[in-house]
Amino acid sequence: MKFFPVLLILVIACAEAPEHKVEQHAALIPSKKIVLDGLNHPWSIAFMSTAEALISEKDGNLLLVNLNSKEKTIIKGFPEDLTDSIRAIHFGDNSGIFEVLTSPNFKSDSLVYFSYAAKKKGAGTTTKVARAKLNNDSLTKHETLLIAEPYTKEYYHYGGGMTFGKDGKLYITIGERLFWERDEPPLPIAQDVADKRGKIYRINPDGSIPEDNPNFGVGSIPGIYALGIRAAQGITVQPGSGKIWFSEHGTIQGDEINILEAGANYGWPNVTSGKLRSSDYTPPQLDDVSFIPPVWFWPHTVAPTGLTFYTGNDFPHWKNNLFVPGLSRGSLWRFRIDDTTIKSAEELFIDDRVRIRKARQSPDGKLYILTDEDNGKLIQIIPQ
Amino acid sequence: MKFFPVLLILVIACAEAPEHKVEQHAALIPSKKIVLDGLNHPWSIAFMSTAEALISEKDGNLLLVNLNSKEKTIIKGFPEDLTDSIRAIHFGDNSGIFEVLTSPNFKSDSLVYFSYAAKKKGAGTTTKVARAKLNNDSLTKHETLLIAEPYTKEYYHYGGGMTFGKDGKLYITIGERLFWERDEPPLPIAQDVADKRGKIYRINPDGSIPEDNPNFGVGSIPGIYALGIRAAQGITVQPGSGKIWFSEHGTIQGDEINILEAGANYGWPNVTSGKLRSSDYTPPQLDDVSFIPPVWFWPHTVAPTGLTFYTGNDFPHWKNNLFVPGLSRGSLWRFRIDDTTIKSAEELFIDDRVRIRKARQSPDGKLYILTDEDNGKLIQIIPQ
Repeated sequence: MKFFPVLLILVIACAEAPEHKVEQHAALIPSKKIVLDGLNHPWSIAFMSTAEALISEKDGNLLLVNLNSKEKTIIKGFPEDLTDSIRAIHFGDNSGIFEVLTSPNFKSDSLVYFSYAAKKKGAGTTTKVARAKLNNDSLTKHETLLIAEPYTKEYYHYGGGMTFGKDGKLYITIGERLFWERDEPPLPIAQDVADKRGKIYRINPDGSIPEDNPNFGVGSIPGIYALGIRAAQGITVQPGSGKIWFSEHGTIQGDEINILEAGANYGWPNVTSGKLRSSDYTPPQLDDVSFIPPVWFWPHTVAPTGLTFYTGNDFPHWKNNLFVPGLSRGSLWRFRIDDTTIKSAEELFIDDRVRIRKARQSPDGKLYILTDEDNGKLIQIIPQ
Repeated sequence: MKFFPVLLILVIACAEAPEHKVEQHAALIPSKKIVLDGLNHPWSIAFMSTAEALISEKDGNLLLVNLNSKEKTIIKGFPEDLTDSIRAIHFGDNSGIFEVLTSPNFKSDSLVYFSYAAKKKGAGTTTKVARAKLNNDSLTKHETLLIAEPYTKEYYHYGGGMTFGKDGKLYITIGERLFWERDEPPLPIAQDVADKRGKIYRINPDGSIPEDNPNFGVGSIPGIYALGIRAAQGITVQPGSGKIWFSEHGTIQGDEINILEAGANYGWPNVTSGKLRSSDYTPPQLDDVSFIPPVWFWPHTVAPTGLTFYTGNDFPHWKNNLFVPGLSRGSLWRFRIDDTTIKSAEELFIDDRVRIRKARQSPDGKLYILTDEDNGKLIQIIPQ
């Protein structure tokens, strides 16, 4: 009789071992869980808690959403000069509401930062950055922080990506707004420090200019931190290093990931990892200029957008990996990175590709993506 | 005093938890460990045990190696009609020793199967498949199983990939041997069932033709199992399903992964996921032919070679994943697959790319790769 308990334990151990192994395996494989739908081309999400967030809709509104109750409330008081595919003449253009961020001191100052395509009668549209106090479901006490003049008739490449740096400054991407390179002035827009477009900005949260910004010389636009930008949207902070990474759309190929450096020139349109759209266009010779190469570029079009680093615990082998969503082929990319070296690149959900505008992590370390659809969705990436 | 033990346990638990987490994370990240070097463009490896293996060198010999002692022994008795970049006129061509496999019944029959570029005086070279008994360090009792005639003067696309199927049959890839499509005869080589080249074969281990092979009609070459092949090298069996997967080199792009089906036509040169090398070549119209599309193709050149499925335990989240090495950009790719659906694709070791010819798993479930270099290496992929 004394051998029975030992035998019983062995039987249990043998029966449980394979099951446990399968479970462990599945826990490392990602799948999608739709948390919210019915969003109108959502662009960005700012978490106020694990359950409450602000979602900007490109072709719609700024929303307050509850991930548990699924309730959506339209935030009142969004600036009336907003233009998007519904309000504008053109459909399918790049206008709309872009980034939304809560202040790093949101609990005390209730400030919300947002970027959008603003229109001016007779002049056209441009990218505007503003902040306002969120008072229940209304924005009040608006302050404009940046207007990327000139207003033009082009409906492309507004940029509008924003992030707060580790240094508390606000970093903003502004696109060069052109579709064809043949429309460039003699000194290309993104290379001209007297032109507001095609730049990355670094400003204080109140819109003033930090004294330690790089100096681009007499006549340069205050706040410029880097130049040579074509159409950057995603911008995010790397955990640990505090380095700022941003994504950029190319024309024919040329989609890139870059690391932001003070005073750097990212080369558009003089250098690109892709091809120019205007085959007859030759960029001018620029003297004494050095261009920063991307840390990554794709050999095909991905249209990379709102990237984020992941620091959650659901997927331990993804810790500190960079997630880059795309609007074109390859809708979610994962990059394993050692400091600034890309070690591996994985295209996820190959059999379930969808236009993705943004990847973002919630305060409790969950990974979310926003799909760019008429019936846009907030999707959580969960273990299988 | 009674609280001390509890406190001590808490301190230990707290101190150990983060360390354990880091360890768990690192254990899921791959790194490379060089097991052997000094190999002369190794092409294939056949494990006889966890420590002993046969390695074929493309530009060298068939070797018996010991992974522990690092000892290498040249196998005597390799067929003398072998031609490779050392023995041939041309350097940098595709000739040499290709696949090496041990018999599924190796312990009782001591049979080794191998493929290589064979020369015939005045005629040229072609792919030959043979088997022989391994007697200590010598091959004896040779039997030729397949000669992919005609012998030609071209030094390209021999194929030579081999695997035993779940059905015990030997599957063999034979390339079409052309470099330019403009050299195709009116009925392209790979589309002509009366031509031995550009096909996948299924034969019995003794070289006879299985009765249940697909029927390609009067005048067709015995043993053909599929056609429309340009330059396939890697061929392997999927665990569970027993499906056979193979890689194929394209010309300008067009690198593919395919699943083998009896009687299937993979389309070369009539369809390709890339571009033809001879821009002035137009394939003939073929009637009543349907082509099987690849399950995967790359938008850039990878030159995919000796692929394998992984079933080991070192990386639980990689279980049943397909590993595809490449000679060009992207040297090791990992595909997560659900039956025949590719779910994700990861390019590994981006900052440490090297030409890789073969990925193979040892009997104890370890993942190895062979690098295609003058100083070729056998590398184990280990957890960090």
